[in-house]
Amino acid sequence: MEYNFSRSMSNLKPSAIREIFKSLTDPSIISFSAGNPSVESFPVKEIGEISKEIFDSPTLSAQALQYSITEGYSPLITQVKNRLKNKFNIGNDFDDLIITSGGQQGIDLTCKILCNENDTIICEKPSFIGSLNAFRSYGVNLYGVELRDDGMDIEMLENALKTKNNVKLIYTISTFQNPTGITTSLEKRKQIYSLAKKYNVLILEDNPYGELRFSGEDIPTLKSLDTEGIVIYSGSFSKILSAGMRVGFLCAPKPIISKVVVAKQTNDVHTNIFFQMICSEFIKRYNLDDHIANIRKLYGRKCKIMLDSLESTVDNRIKFTRPEGGIFFWCSLPEGYDSAEFAKVCINNKVAIVPGTAFLTEIGQSEPGFRLNYSMPTDDEIVKGIT
Amino acid sequence: MEYNFSRSMSNLKPSAIREIFKSLTDPSIISFSAGNPSVESFPVKEIGEISKEIFDSPTLSAQALQYSITEGYSPLITQVKNRLKNKFNIGNDFDDLIITSGGQQGIDLTCKILCNENDTIICEKPSFIGSLNAFRSYGVNLYGVELRDDGMDIEMLENALKTKNNVKLIYTISTFQNPTGITTSLEKRKQIYSLAKKYNVLILEDNPYGELRFSGEDIPTLKSLDTEGIVIYSGSFSKILSAGMRVGFLCAPKPIISKVVVAKQTNDVHTNIFFQMICSEFIKRYNLDDHIANIRKLYGRKCKIMLDSLESTVDNRIKFTRPEGGIFFWCSLPEGYDSAEFAKVCINNKVAIVPGTAFLTEIGQSEPGFRLNYSMPTDDEIVKGIT
Repeated sequence: MEYNFSRSMSNLKPSAIREIFKSLTDPSIISFSAGNPSVESFPVKEIGEISKEIFDSPTLSAQALQYSITEGYSPLITQVKNRLKNKFNIGNDFDDLIITSGGQQGIDLTCKILCNENDTIICEKPSFIGSLNAFRSYGVNLYGVELRDDGMDIEMLENALKTKNNVKLIYTISTFQNPTGITTSLEKRKQIYSLAKKYNVLILEDNPYGELRFSGEDIPTLKSLDTEGIVIYSGSFSKILSAGMRVGFLCAPKPIISKVVVAKQTNDVHTNIFFQMICSEFIKRYNLDDHIANIRKLYGRKCKIMLDSLESTVDNRIKFTRPEGGIFFWCSLPEGYDSAEFAKVCINNKVAIVPGTAFLTEIGQSEPGFRLNYSMPTDDEIVKGIT
Repeated sequence: MEYNFSRSMSNLKPSAIREIFKSLTDPSIISFSAGNPSVESFPVKEIGEISKEIFDSPTLSAQALQYSITEGYSPLITQVKNRLKNKFNIGNDFDDLIITSGGQQGIDLTCKILCNENDTIICEKPSFIGSLNAFRSYGVNLYGVELRDDGMDIEMLENALKTKNNVKLIYTISTFQNPTGITTSLEKRKQIYSLAKKYNVLILEDNPYGELRFSGEDIPTLKSLDTEGIVIYSGSFSKILSAGMRVGFLCAPKPIISKVVVAKQTNDVHTNIFFQMICSEFIKRYNLDDHIANIRKLYGRKCKIMLDSLESTVDNRIKFTRPEGGIFFWCSLPEGYDSAEFAKVCINNKVAIVPGTAFLTEIGQSEPGFRLNYSMPTDDEIVKGIT
């Protein structure tokens, strides 16, 4: 039997990162390639306690193991809405919120409900491969706008909005961007918002790292500037409680959320309810902000170790960012060098990095940048790996 | 701001069943409308014990809460493969298996990787609304082949294969079908397989209820007859361990599974790893077959209670099936009556049923059939509700 795949899926290849991730099972390799949180960031004891109480209770266990509604566990929805509103000024009267199976599902379904084949999504260049591939999986054309130190090149963005056909979405990871770690400045956020409004295009703001700031000042999210219902905001518990449990959320204007609910019904019915209950109970009983403060301290320390190692060992023709948060460094080889080749040299030396080529909207281009992760490796591994 | 949705999503409405399910929170209503397993079928004590061990172990808890690979937890993949092979003769050398976020995700992604907009999927008429809506969400045309007492009308099926454009898939719930409870005979399974082969079309066999037989003899699955790599088989732990945990699987030829892996990466990265570990440990430590035998006994008893109630109370112009397994009765009103109207009368009398109109490939048709579920209500509720 010969198998013919749909147009949009037939050219999509497995993500380079996920493939690298599979090689992580080799314990002799020091990995700077994952986007994983540190296992030290998981509140294991607290989750274990809540879990025990759920399974010890006939009512709670029945609820945790039975089908549930697509929208999500309603106490958690209320808690997330309140936290977004009180802490980040996110959420207007016209907005609603749905719990998703990780941030990834919210991004996937946003594209699905908005885009037809051959529509265009404008992305940062480089950008997160998981999102780019989700968009590609619906046959959408990607257009990458160059990232400057303070966010997208605004002229290039406006030009794309003017000239590209059927632009449906501007996709931005506004804070501690993946892979570059760049944070878009407040001024540029306002410009991006104005342009979206002017050209009648929605913004998908993906913010999985926003709470992981360990130096500098917080910058308001694009969603907090949203007075017209232009911004769809994707958040996640992956980097603040646990990645494996697959719990994220999407906050957006009500008509958008209603349509995402319909798409999610047919996608996975609902997100596993047990971990929604765990998140909800954790927020109720413990101080989530204190927990996140500890993660920030941890990542600040790990970032410093990697920065010190980079500064003391690396050839000064290699440039690197100085992150104020998040979990990634972005490094650039000198002009003319290719990061894909460099990644091969590294893996032969038992160090895994992710070449920047993986994050481009066009496939096959050369790229001098590469990504280093400092949240997952141990302190010793960071020093040894950089050396 | 005005929101324009993608062509395929703009006409898709929330599932009638999920909407009815939301009304289940009213405790004064007796519900025969859900597709939920009985809470008595969940092995709460055993899951609680395994859960405690996971959270008590630094290694296991780190694994349960961290990102994992898209394909699934490898011990579970091996266990499911072995069980399918040894117990149901499912799985050839050319096949592989992926863990999905419930059976629903496997069905959704199968459609996504195979179908372009305006391709055709042939379904049973009536069929499971969750699958029909998943197919619709990709802009696929549905063609419903009438169900007889022993499965699809074969003449109508061949005619559709001959005349419909771009048929990519025959979708069948071969055993204890949802909503009718009908089991396709072995002869018809062979005929469907031959026709798929003749017309070069794949079969998606959805089998979430197959293990729930409480009388009569097992019939080999279509997948067990698959010598050419024609059948994609979707299974689930929802009805044998827990629905809320969202763990299912897809067994299909390797090129299909590889492509589903790519689609799943961009959809939810991976299924929550904790419950994959729970399933795996449950199978390792306890006897899954014994556990399922208890569920069969439970549903056999509940089915008998509903059957007795139907026989002793219901007007003999209403016809109903005599299930040998699964969780549904299918009832038919006399010619000329509409089940949607009847459902409204029922809900006014505090009983929820699902009208057959919800399960049709064409929207807006009248349908005398309706579905009753006996796995979720208590014994007393069954008697009271039917009366």
